[in-house]
Amino acid sequence: MGKLLIHGADLMTMCEDTPIIHDSAVVIEQDEFVFIGEEQDLPQEWTYDRTIEAADQVIMPGMINTHNHAAMILLRSYADDLPLMEWLEQKIWPIEAKLTAEDVYWGSLGAIVEMIKSGTTCFADMYFFMDETAKAVEESGIRGVLSHGMIGVGPNGADDLRIARQFCLDWEKRADGRIQTMLGPHAPFTCPPDYLGKILDIAGEIDKPLHIHLSETLSEVKDIQKQYGKTPIKLVAEVGLFEHPVLAAHCVHLSDEDFEILKAAKALGIAHNPQSNMKLASGIAPVQRMLKEGLVVGIGTDGASSNNNLDLLEEMSTAALLAKIGTMDSTALPSGECLRMATIYGAKALGQGEQLGTLEVGKKADLVILDFKKPHLVPRHNIMAHTVYSAQSSDIMTVIVNGQIVMENRELKTVDEERIMFEVERCAGELLRR
Amino acid sequence: MGKLLIHGADLMTMCEDTPIIHDSAVVIEQDEFVFIGEEQDLPQEWTYDRTIEAADQVIMPGMINTHNHAAMILLRSYADDLPLMEWLEQKIWPIEAKLTAEDVYWGSLGAIVEMIKSGTTCFADMYFFMDETAKAVEESGIRGVLSHGMIGVGPNGADDLRIARQFCLDWEKRADGRIQTMLGPHAPFTCPPDYLGKILDIAGEIDKPLHIHLSETLSEVKDIQKQYGKTPIKLVAEVGLFEHPVLAAHCVHLSDEDFEILKAAKALGIAHNPQSNMKLASGIAPVQRMLKEGLVVGIGTDGASSNNNLDLLEEMSTAALLAKIGTMDSTALPSGECLRMATIYGAKALGQGEQLGTLEVGKKADLVILDFKKPHLVPRHNIMAHTVYSAQSSDIMTVIVNGQIVMENRELKTVDEERIMFEVERCAGELLRR
Repeated sequence: MGKLLIHGADLMTMCEDTPIIHDSAVVIEQDEFVFIGEEQDLPQEWTYDRTIEAADQVIMPGMINTHNHAAMILLRSYADDLPLMEWLEQKIWPIEAKLTAEDVYWGSLGAIVEMIKSGTTCFADMYFFMDETAKAVEESGIRGVLSHGMIGVGPNGADDLRIARQFCLDWEKRADGRIQTMLGPHAPFTCPPDYLGKILDIAGEIDKPLHIHLSETLSEVKDIQKQYGKTPIKLVAEVGLFEHPVLAAHCVHLSDEDFEILKAAKALGIAHNPQSNMKLASGIAPVQRMLKEGLVVGIGTDGASSNNNLDLLEEMSTAALLAKIGTMDSTALPSGECLRMATIYGAKALGQGEQLGTLEVGKKADLVILDFKKPHLVPRHNIMAHTVYSAQSSDIMTVIVNGQIVMENRELKTVDEERIMFEVERCAGELLRR
Repeated sequence: MGKLLIHGADLMTMCEDTPIIHDSAVVIEQDEFVFIGEEQDLPQEWTYDRTIEAADQVIMPGMINTHNHAAMILLRSYADDLPLMEWLEQKIWPIEAKLTAEDVYWGSLGAIVEMIKSGTTCFADMYFFMDETAKAVEESGIRGVLSHGMIGVGPNGADDLRIARQFCLDWEKRADGRIQTMLGPHAPFTCPPDYLGKILDIAGEIDKPLHIHLSETLSEVKDIQKQYGKTPIKLVAEVGLFEHPVLAAHCVHLSDEDFEILKAAKALGIAHNPQSNMKLASGIAPVQRMLKEGLVVGIGTDGASSNNNLDLLEEMSTAALLAKIGTMDSTALPSGECLRMATIYGAKALGQGEQLGTLEVGKKADLVILDFKKPHLVPRHNIMAHTVYSAQSSDIMTVIVNGQIVMENRELKTVDEERIMFEVERCAGELLRR
């Protein structure tokens, strides 16, 4: 396959030196960017198999959702506006116990359809029946960083260890390298120190990062403090978690000592989930301080049951607004920083900063084309602020992952959207009757 | 003109007794609903000029934006992420001083295009060159509650009194009754007591409600407290504001005494603007308490320069999330209550609760049809939660105001969207060069 040229757009490269490029050309060959720049600088001798016109449009790196439970779209709006423990214990856990592998397959595909249509090209997931999610990633063309969630306090702790390890061995670098794997200890309160220790042994053995929920709610912090006399962060640090690469979801409630531990971690990415943290009243993560202190922070939606969509444009806007009201400082988390969180910082949080997250020659060709000829995107004073504060996911016209066009003019090219919506509705209906 | 039938949709009527109706029929004749119910109950003998099929779709009352400065879309993303006073004094006010009547005309039309496309059928506005906004309302078919903003501390105080009064006389009930008018004293800190007194005299003379910003920021409250020894609410109450019907925007910072004053007001509606309050770091309005204490609270976007769009679906979601995080209670402001704020409570806040805000026979025919066959709206566990937490404005297919179809299948029927976007971009460009 020859070269694909996209020309005429304004680029938000998310590179530090050339954040915005007007009248641009983007050239993709195989799965990589081979040219990013002004159209006038294109090598004269190049020819193209395919050209996409993108005047009036804006191109940004594919967005990265650093924390998701994709198949939970099956539970979208199944339970809302409830106290957290009632929501979890009386609604979510009982119905999750009835989920089948088939449910997770269609739920994952449904989530992937939604993610592609809202500009996400890579997502980090933690759930069960993860083979099904991996199949959905493989078929759809999206990129996934997948982990089987492990719970040591229930009856399946030993099984989880085996399943999670095998999942990593089975799927790592599959789907042309689009799949990467992690081990998924659920949280400190579901993975006690001895169990977490076993997971870390496996992580060392097969050289895998870990995806974990940390310090999401005040009650978690209080309970761990009561049980162990230390914060969740300190607890898992003492077991050795941060000697491995870690993707830590939430980190809402952090002590000064927690900050020091996180800053000393070997390779840490934090997934900030502002809508989920607000909807569940978990708290306001200190994102400004994290960034100021040099931590790597990406954005996540969390599962659709606590969001209730998987829309990273919305999530960026909410991150900015929440940071401003949380610090009572309207300069907090400006639009450029939100865009970095959804792209390059997200890539770094997943350990893929060298391959993903910016429009840059040599990186994997993951991008999103937004149509800016929309009433809510005129006049065009500032394309970064427009994208964060005013754009909506239906402005996203075309999405490319790993050099492959997975959506063009809002039409999915790799999967059957209509069929998937039908199966999601069917699975959810059967789940309720089960 | 005969009857219009819309059938097959699920209705969110926002009526207390029958919130949801499945397999529905909605019949409109002239500017009113003449049937709202199950399709099987339709009078057999009725015939229809026009039928709209709405299977898989959801119908709700037209949404009501209770606080806007429509023409400020010209400044969308012109200045963001700045300290409030720098934003106002160095960015917004200097460029607003250069706005012309033509700018406000095209800016208002641009805002109306955006509002219709996001399901707003009625908006309350305060700005200047209000004749131009009124013309835009008249031409577009939307409903407007319009007020000329008055500032007593500048050189134009006397002019403003005259202009505002004349605007009300000129435009009240024009455009088939779609235009209603108010007097718009800007705020306590720009309308000192003697000036506000003059406005109230006019309000009494011509029997008009007042639209005012109240207690938006902490610095406003502190400054007024310092200057007058009382809160802004108490200050304007003592001048007699609440002896008239009032639409009060923001009310973020309220004392217990303020609450008592507001509860004793003659006819008060509060416009809650969650995204603007977050973006400008103004604070978290005590919406839960307001509703609990019986105050009437609608939702507003505020101007696009502090939002940055005019999307009430987003605003509902943000209102819910902000209430939950603000009270650390995940049950705060459930989806049904958000929908009421954007519809019937908004109607009541504008003094139009008898005519607008629910799908009910005898009310004005303002409605929105949402397409629910979308990846982010399956499975269909709960249409109210879907609408608040997951829907986006591009799901809105068809909008009817006062019995007239103003958008059908996302195509505007009353104004030229392409032309208006062009003129908005042109006016904004000329404004920057002026």
